[in-house]
Amino acid sequence: MKKKAITSPKKKSRVNEKPVILITNDDGITAPGIRSLVEAVKDIGKIVVVAPDKAQSGMGHAITIGQPLRLHKVQMFEGVESWSCTGTPVDCVKLAVDKVLHRKPDLCLSGINHGANHSINVIYSGTMSAAVEAAIESIPSAGFSLLDYSIDADFSGAKKYARIIVEKMLSTKLEKHTVLNVNVPSKPEILLKGIKICRQAYAKYVEDFIERKDPHGKHYYWLTGEFVNFDKGKDTDVWALANNYVSVVPVQFDLTHYAMKDKLKNWEK
Amino acid sequence: MKKKAITSPKKKSRVNEKPVILITNDDGITAPGIRSLVEAVKDIGKIVVVAPDKAQSGMGHAITIGQPLRLHKVQMFEGVESWSCTGTPVDCVKLAVDKVLHRKPDLCLSGINHGANHSINVIYSGTMSAAVEAAIESIPSAGFSLLDYSIDADFSGAKKYARIIVEKMLSTKLEKHTVLNVNVPSKPEILLKGIKICRQAYAKYVEDFIERKDPHGKHYYWLTGEFVNFDKGKDTDVWALANNYVSVVPVQFDLTHYAMKDKLKNWEK
Repeated sequence: MKKKAITSPKKKSRVNEKPVILITNDDGITAPGIRSLVEAVKDIGKIVVVAPDKAQSGMGHAITIGQPLRLHKVQMFEGVESWSCTGTPVDCVKLAVDKVLHRKPDLCLSGINHGANHSINVIYSGTMSAAVEAAIESIPSAGFSLLDYSIDADFSGAKKYARIIVEKMLSTKLEKHTVLNVNVPSKPEILLKGIKICRQAYAKYVEDFIERKDPHGKHYYWLTGEFVNFDKGKDTDVWALANNYVSVVPVQFDLTHYAMKDKLKNWEK
Repeated sequence: MKKKAITSPKKKSRVNEKPVILITNDDGITAPGIRSLVEAVKDIGKIVVVAPDKAQSGMGHAITIGQPLRLHKVQMFEGVESWSCTGTPVDCVKLAVDKVLHRKPDLCLSGINHGANHSINVIYSGTMSAAVEAAIESIPSAGFSLLDYSIDADFSGAKKYARIIVEKMLSTKLEKHTVLNVNVPSKPEILLKGIKICRQAYAKYVEDFIERKDPHGKHYYWLTGEFVNFDKGKDTDVWALANNYVSVVPVQFDLTHYAMKDKLKNWEK
């Protein structure tokens, strides 16, 4: 395999050239949410879509190791180069950079997800994992989610804020590993009170698997769960969303727990 | 569905009662690594194994939403209650707590993984995601990995240090959200220099998808990549492993980038 350098955006971008924006998601390329995201930012940059060919919710940071991947050129969004991919959201970002763009885009956007990705959801979310993957690759990124799972969800508020945030990202000197987790309340646009920069709430699902028997008498289990917020802070994403703010949590992929690291030092003897 | 409380270990454990230790992995219940982990700690506690029925490497924090899960009681390890599960490593932890143990175990151990989970691998790793899931559930946990992918790998060093670390975990007053990412060099036990408490190195795979054509002339892609360490620090897991130390990185699941949060405050206007 001949190696080729993947150039960084700075080396390729020229003055007055529109930024290259990679768009992906985890609900699949046919989901209304990704169409909303493309529409929201279409005139801001050169958009390229590489997204899963089917829903990939809850895939977290999964990658495909044991089987090969396919890319199919599709016509989904007028005037926008679009590819559907057989892999996970993270696979999409990796393949897009290496085999579609042959360079790093200036920005990677993921979503708009149908459903919340606040608090602990950031860890399970394919939408957010795609954004994190981009940031690992030194591509500033943002994942967008609307707190409405419905296929008929009203994306107007989410579109408005996606555009505002992308414009802010492009006009700010962002660290190359920037990842923003953006969630938008499921409320009419007029009721949204603006952006709140937050921390991730300690909130999680309390599991309750539903147990059923198949026609042969054998048990099977469906994952369900009740969402419980254990975090009473007013600086969290869950608080902001409950109070009609658009929550923005900057995310990092260095998972080191530094405070605990210091405490465990005596284990070295 | 009738709700039942999942009790915390403290409420159930009695004086002199052995700790309940849940063991899982991502290489599947038949992998030599999980057998080594069971052997290493078998006499320390009451061991229950709930592990995937097939290899689940690279699954990250994926959960199974769109289909039900199955649990099968198996006889794998003498005198140890063992279940194989059709889901991901994270599913295994969730199902184990809710449907097998009906309580939180005192400790959750994952591995021993066949292959490294240092640096950025923590994000892709099913082994580590299972451990993180346990910690979200307030169960102190550790993931163990040996830097050898081989099915015939020599686990003796990894077993020795798994036991040392589990004993330290049980004798230390650990925070309930503790997660330790433990990696062991692929070296004879005698050459291992001890434990090093580390931070996660900024090291990653530089992707290079191998492109092939199927018999019908259509392209497909295999994910490959070259591991590159961009981090010259001597306090990282990659450094420790290269110098024959067993690396221990305490991991957190609050992904908030606090420094960046402060910088973005002016976006609120």
